[in-house]
Amino acid sequence: MSVYVHGIGMTQFGKLESRTLKDLLLDASIEALHDAGNPRVDAVFVGNFMGGSIYNQEILGAIIANDLGLGYIPTAKVEGACASGGIAIRQAILGIMSGEYETVLVAGVEKMKHVSTSEVTKAINAAMDNDSNEKHAGLTFPGFFGVLANRYIYETEATKEHLAMVALKNRKNALNNPLAQFKKATSMEEIMAARMITEPLGLFDCSPTTDGASAIVLSKKKSDIHVLASAQASGPTQMQDAVELLSIPAVGESGRIAYEKAGLGPKDIDVVEIHDCFSMTEILSSEELGFFAKREGYLAVEQGKTKPNGEVPINTSGGLLSKGHPIGATGISQIYQIVLQLRGKAPNQVDGARIGLAQNLGGTGSYSTVHILERV
Amino acid sequence: MSVYVHGIGMTQFGKLESRTLKDLLLDASIEALHDAGNPRVDAVFVGNFMGGSIYNQEILGAIIANDLGLGYIPTAKVEGACASGGIAIRQAILGIMSGEYETVLVAGVEKMKHVSTSEVTKAINAAMDNDSNEKHAGLTFPGFFGVLANRYIYETEATKEHLAMVALKNRKNALNNPLAQFKKATSMEEIMAARMITEPLGLFDCSPTTDGASAIVLSKKKSDIHVLASAQASGPTQMQDAVELLSIPAVGESGRIAYEKAGLGPKDIDVVEIHDCFSMTEILSSEELGFFAKREGYLAVEQGKTKPNGEVPINTSGGLLSKGHPIGATGISQIYQIVLQLRGKAPNQVDGARIGLAQNLGGTGSYSTVHILERV
Repeated sequence: MSVYVHGIGMTQFGKLESRTLKDLLLDASIEALHDAGNPRVDAVFVGNFMGGSIYNQEILGAIIANDLGLGYIPTAKVEGACASGGIAIRQAILGIMSGEYETVLVAGVEKMKHVSTSEVTKAINAAMDNDSNEKHAGLTFPGFFGVLANRYIYETEATKEHLAMVALKNRKNALNNPLAQFKKATSMEEIMAARMITEPLGLFDCSPTTDGASAIVLSKKKSDIHVLASAQASGPTQMQDAVELLSIPAVGESGRIAYEKAGLGPKDIDVVEIHDCFSMTEILSSEELGFFAKREGYLAVEQGKTKPNGEVPINTSGGLLSKGHPIGATGISQIYQIVLQLRGKAPNQVDGARIGLAQNLGGTGSYSTVHILERV
Repeated sequence: MSVYVHGIGMTQFGKLESRTLKDLLLDASIEALHDAGNPRVDAVFVGNFMGGSIYNQEILGAIIANDLGLGYIPTAKVEGACASGGIAIRQAILGIMSGEYETVLVAGVEKMKHVSTSEVTKAINAAMDNDSNEKHAGLTFPGFFGVLANRYIYETEATKEHLAMVALKNRKNALNNPLAQFKKATSMEEIMAARMITEPLGLFDCSPTTDGASAIVLSKKKSDIHVLASAQASGPTQMQDAVELLSIPAVGESGRIAYEKAGLGPKDIDVVEIHDCFSMTEILSSEELGFFAKREGYLAVEQGKTKPNGEVPINTSGGLLSKGHPIGATGISQIYQIVLQLRGKAPNQVDGARIGLAQNLGGTGSYSTVHILERV
């Protein structure tokens, strides 16, 4: 497809008290536009999840277009739970492919650190199907992925140590990423001994709440970063609808479509960002995307294959677990890291990385996007 | 453009206590899919504004796809304040034009009647720029459009009676629309004497809060209803940024682009739905869309030109003022009425209507979409 990346921007991820939702969105957008050489922009898409519910602020698309003086261009916010950023990127790509837009700005933002844990938990639970039994049963996101982790440990030889290895790898990667939320070194011992959130997932197995924004400029004009494929799929919105607990069909399906569009397979990918909302999710999705056989993802972790110098470097940014997870910004920040890798300027640079893949998950498997990028 | 309407659906608008947000969305979607002959659907877009903030329910795209058994297809929610429905339709059109999708379901929903007026007012105010002075000054939507109405009355010979004429016309139209929220006849006297909301806008000059859903099936396959144009523009998000108080540039710009794409002008349009969130807004937007000269829209109302048998029939559905305004559903329900008109089966049918236009506004002028449809 004739879509190229022209610019990227990202704020610090973490607790950013002095910046509003709008400030963060503008910070990342201005950086991405500058990186792109400040082109004329034909449309803006924003990825955001809880601006309305905890910040009482919607119309972020129009706010950016207006505040940046981009003219009276079409803009919209896109929501698909934690995949809002990836889906916003996809809408920009469809808009360019339709011929309506030449150059599009996509920006994602979330501000989650200024409200209580119970408020943010309630807001996050809007990403579950609340007409269902799950709400009344009190299921939460850590609860959902905790069930999957227990099942994985039951069906395989995996142990809680394998989950900890994912958390440790991503923390180590974050130590080299100046924009990551967590930059304090840790150890297997600390991770294993950490406060339990939901058995078997401890504190380090769960992504944090985060303030932050990220942005990207896409265009049909050529650049050195080519979008080879954009794919999206949906999946069951409730655990009771899952055909198999250890399958996330939205991830598998979006991966399958992306590989088909790109004319590539998992072996052709040099560097990967996977939506590791929980340590368990990184392992399951690495299997769904075909990097490892089903029920063998934990072995790849044990063998170091997913480290920056391994066969399949996953989450060189630090991932959601340690880079942070400002919901609407997450999918766009994954592309930010992949672009840095393809430019040869990433934290935890993978030597000679030429093709990268980013996978963004929404809900308990309700949404997944996969984008494959190539340095040309 | 090669995009056609294949099916439409709409629930009753009003206070619908027994139906959840999901129920309403499914009701309208099932009707639209049935009307379209239950085709294979390649994607779903949902228009919704306050599902997260007052109903704690997002991921509506995946919920529909899942509950209707549409398969693991791409879905997303689209937000652009009160233009969320129109913008969702536009994303479907771009998706079809891009070649990625053949047939797309678009559904819009809002449920606003089960919470207090103060809660719904707070949620609606998320459609204003809350980092600005306007929040601290206590500006609300009736306040904003009240300022415009005062200015209009100051600059022209218009009076409060002209606003009342819009409200009365739309109420009369709603009497024939079985799905409209208000079906009680009224009179100029009652409207003029009604409780003041914000000078000079009385109760009948303001659109109500509403529960309801609407849906549409679009496809690149031919049907008897052709989408001639889809246009979108943005505008200032704050009153202080307005170049001129009595101009809503997003409406004018989206209209100009739509006419250009369709190769038509205002005189070619047989029937119109305008976003009459307030009586004043219908008059201003009828001018912005070129149906009447600037500052003369009120005269057209006085002369009966906007009645169903007039030169430019506006809001034959009853409009937002009397059909109701379930935010995310509104833009799609406008297309519902235009399609009924082009099929010759509408409430307040306009004889021989062949070309129709629907205009959907978001925020205080932050977003506007215009769609032009033709019976072929």
